[in-house]
Amino acid sequence: MAYPDPASVEAAFYAAFRELDEAGMLKVWSDSAEASCIHPGGPLLRGTQQIMQSWHEIFRDTSPPQVESRLIQASADQRLAVHTVEEHVSSANGARKAIILATNIYTYSQDGWRLLAHHASLPLVESSDEEAPPKALH
Amino acid sequence: MAYPDPASVEAAFYAAFRELDEAGMLKVWSDSAEASCIHPGGPLLRGTQQIMQSWHEIFRDTSPPQVESRLIQASADQRLAVHTVEEHVSSANGARKAIILATNIYTYSQDGWRLLAHHASLPLVESSDEEAPPKALH
Repeated sequence: MAYPDPASVEAAFYAAFRELDEAGMLKVWSDSAEASCIHPGGPLLRGTQQIMQSWHEIFRDTSPPQVESRLIQASADQRLAVHTVEEHVSSANGARKAIILATNIYTYSQDGWRLLAHHASLPLVESSDEEAPPKALH
Repeated sequence: MAYPDPASVEAAFYAAFRELDEAGMLKVWSDSAEASCIHPGGPLLRGTQQIMQSWHEIFRDTSPPQVESRLIQASADQRLAVHTVEEHVSSANGARKAIILATNIYTYSQDGWRLLAHHASLPLVESSDEEAPPKALH
């Protein structure tokens, strides 16, 4: 499977997330020791194997969430692309909604475009009605 | 001031942070509406003006922190580069230490290399002796 552009990889990544599809998730990632993933509040995971282990744990015993991604910003070079996205994530019953900011890095290799890095923040919003992002702490 | 490579921009970025140097901070950022910054736990800031306003607030009434950056991973294309870094941040008196994971995106333009995006997570470690990253929440 060779994705023709970063947008195709991104769509497949969020589809795999939505469907708790481990095989689909594996296909979107760069098969590389340089792949990296930072889940919300989590440590740095490096390499495809460690990253896939984390998705295995996340997908286990979970109902498929509602996940919608909104592309906020895209920058692309010939072999590297950066997307800033808002992930709108709801629990299966819709009771809890969260907006998660993520930076997704795509790389072009012999396998076409793949996901090289995913860095997601903790949710800005945890209720279903309010939107009150916290003040920056840096 | 034209930085010759992403590493030079990164060094200048953390020097400006360490020295609470607003003018220095302005010089490292891409002068663009497409620039973006996510401080730990914070919302998405877009455009140089909004980003610089945030640094103004962060630098105000603060003692210079100890900030050391460790490059974990670098990927570069001709006009776009991605660095994953660990920021080791201590308060001025060294009493509180934090390790912050950040993704820094650099872009090459007519001004040389500049910082296009900075995405930092909330600290993994808040004590001075222990290292116990929390479990992933995604």
